[in-house]
Amino acid sequence: MTDKVPSAGSCPIDAPRDEVVVLGHGSGGRLTADLVNRVFLPALSNPILDRLEDGAGISLSGTRIVFSTDAFVVKPLRFPGGDIGSLAVNGTINDLAVMGGQPVGLSAAFILEEGFAIEDLRDFTRSMRAAADRAGVAIVAADTKVVDHGKADGLYIATSGIGVVPDKLCLGPEQIKPGDALLVSGPLGDHGIAVMSAREGFEFQTALVSDSAPLNGLVSSMLASGGRIRCMRDPTRGGVATILNELARSGVAEIVVEDARVPVRDAVRAACEILGLDPLYVACEGTIVAIVADEDEGRVLGAMREHPLGAHACRIGTVTATGKARVLLHTALGTTRYLEQLSGSQLPRIC
Amino acid sequence: MTDKVPSAGSCPIDAPRDEVVVLGHGSGGRLTADLVNRVFLPALSNPILDRLEDGAGISLSGTRIVFSTDAFVVKPLRFPGGDIGSLAVNGTINDLAVMGGQPVGLSAAFILEEGFAIEDLRDFTRSMRAAADRAGVAIVAADTKVVDHGKADGLYIATSGIGVVPDKLCLGPEQIKPGDALLVSGPLGDHGIAVMSAREGFEFQTALVSDSAPLNGLVSSMLASGGRIRCMRDPTRGGVATILNELARSGVAEIVVEDARVPVRDAVRAACEILGLDPLYVACEGTIVAIVADEDEGRVLGAMREHPLGAHACRIGTVTATGKARVLLHTALGTTRYLEQLSGSQLPRIC
Repeated sequence: MTDKVPSAGSCPIDAPRDEVVVLGHGSGGRLTADLVNRVFLPALSNPILDRLEDGAGISLSGTRIVFSTDAFVVKPLRFPGGDIGSLAVNGTINDLAVMGGQPVGLSAAFILEEGFAIEDLRDFTRSMRAAADRAGVAIVAADTKVVDHGKADGLYIATSGIGVVPDKLCLGPEQIKPGDALLVSGPLGDHGIAVMSAREGFEFQTALVSDSAPLNGLVSSMLASGGRIRCMRDPTRGGVATILNELARSGVAEIVVEDARVPVRDAVRAACEILGLDPLYVACEGTIVAIVADEDEGRVLGAMREHPLGAHACRIGTVTATGKARVLLHTALGTTRYLEQLSGSQLPRIC
Repeated sequence: MTDKVPSAGSCPIDAPRDEVVVLGHGSGGRLTADLVNRVFLPALSNPILDRLEDGAGISLSGTRIVFSTDAFVVKPLRFPGGDIGSLAVNGTINDLAVMGGQPVGLSAAFILEEGFAIEDLRDFTRSMRAAADRAGVAIVAADTKVVDHGKADGLYIATSGIGVVPDKLCLGPEQIKPGDALLVSGPLGDHGIAVMSAREGFEFQTALVSDSAPLNGLVSSMLASGGRIRCMRDPTRGGVATILNELARSGVAEIVVEDARVPVRDAVRAACEILGLDPLYVACEGTIVAIVADEDEGRVLGAMREHPLGAHACRIGTVTATGKARVLLHTALGTTRYLEQLSGSQLPRIC
């Protein structure tokens, strides 16, 4: 981010002085990873945080829990298929779910802008309640702060959650084995495109609706199938490409994605073409990526397809080797290229 | 807050249209309670949240935990005795501590403003680490979002925490009994006055330093004393007066405070006089209020005074009756008056 080589005519200055936060630091891609590696981990490092998972695994007198947090600053506050309230609830539930945690309680910290309409706040809290009810969990702790007019875009919400992990369940990228199947629960990119369309006022012929939804029920069905699930992720900021790069690095695995198999709605694909985006980098908020044992593909896919949120589940790739940390894309044209992590900020403020 | 009576010349409008969030809704006092009662509870109500305690008590397979969250929007980000980083850690640790919870893990959600200096972010995360180390806990989960330049005042931080409650410990306002002693661990108002002075650039002859500190060690000492502790609170926004009103309401108890016994540093008292503030309404961030059995006052006070954060612990009042929910102040002049909850916004943005 910082140009360490002084450009012609530049004055000598203290090196870090021009280093500032940019929107891309919140993108979930390479710049976010850079901030995590250069600022957060050096200061806050500990064995749990260092795993950089969607939630922290903690053992409490033999009970295994996961603990997760997310701030939500989506713009606009309402978008087709959801709003900041339901998104804040679903997002944290999904972080717990992909770690194998069934949610037992959520918290919500509200940062309100002076002048924000009480009626809107009421709407968003009702939306949170509806989302929590859908997932079978309660918001058990909350806090409210108010900041001056002009700050906070109306409303930011930070949610945290606690989930209980079933005994003996062992999920994580270190479980990945050569031959494993790469599954997704549904079409990619719906959320990012829905928010972007709402923000920019784009009108497309087909309605674009966010997939924002709680995944704990779908995960329960997948676990109940008995298929060997190695690990799961929800591809939010940075999309599937970014998540797969994280899994490939953590599991030291080579993952090959078959582009022709990647499910993307026609409307989302069309919008992506107009906007110059690749659906593999666009956020989902109710879609799961799972790596499962090859022989158990059918069993897990079957369980997913029986659940309303997994009706379009399919296999999109394979773990081809371990020992190499990389993600490759087989294109429809028969070529193969690296599928890199998101660099920069493709779609800011989408969650 | 809303004037329901149209003023002369006003147009008929939908009643709630002019109801908006004001800074006082974040004060921790009556307006915050109003927002909680009119917006948050109707939407989010459940038996745990409805208790309106500093943290949510949850039982997980026999292990009792408390779960708490707070957003921090303090302005300025640095103040004498602390900064937003240490405050965000101490604040959540203290919410757990007063519920009897020893912290086992914290989370932090960062909302960063585009253009915020990376070096400042590094400072604040280091400050968080130092505060967490002091309390013997780790930040195990984190998230980062970036909002546009001009928003977020540089940095907001929402922290959440999980604490484990010792077996058989039973704390809560419903435990309050007539005759109980009201204790505080140290002088009141240091934090609010320190932040206000830093924000407004006031210069006082004596340094005013925030009391921001983690109270879990002090609470452990108090519990280890064996004295019967009925309940504890940390008097943050709205100060001791507001906390006592909450305890009086929840415990249906009459609490009498002896004004002459209330410990306030000379510098804080002088600043309060200049600013027109009452120290009983000014926030502390490292001070505890405890109600204990009258016969155990000496035992608990002794344990508090042996701890560095409780060196100036003292008794400031008595629970005079149950069945009446009110707080009275015996003044030095011999008069008695109601000590009301904070109304409006005495000191905005102090945490």
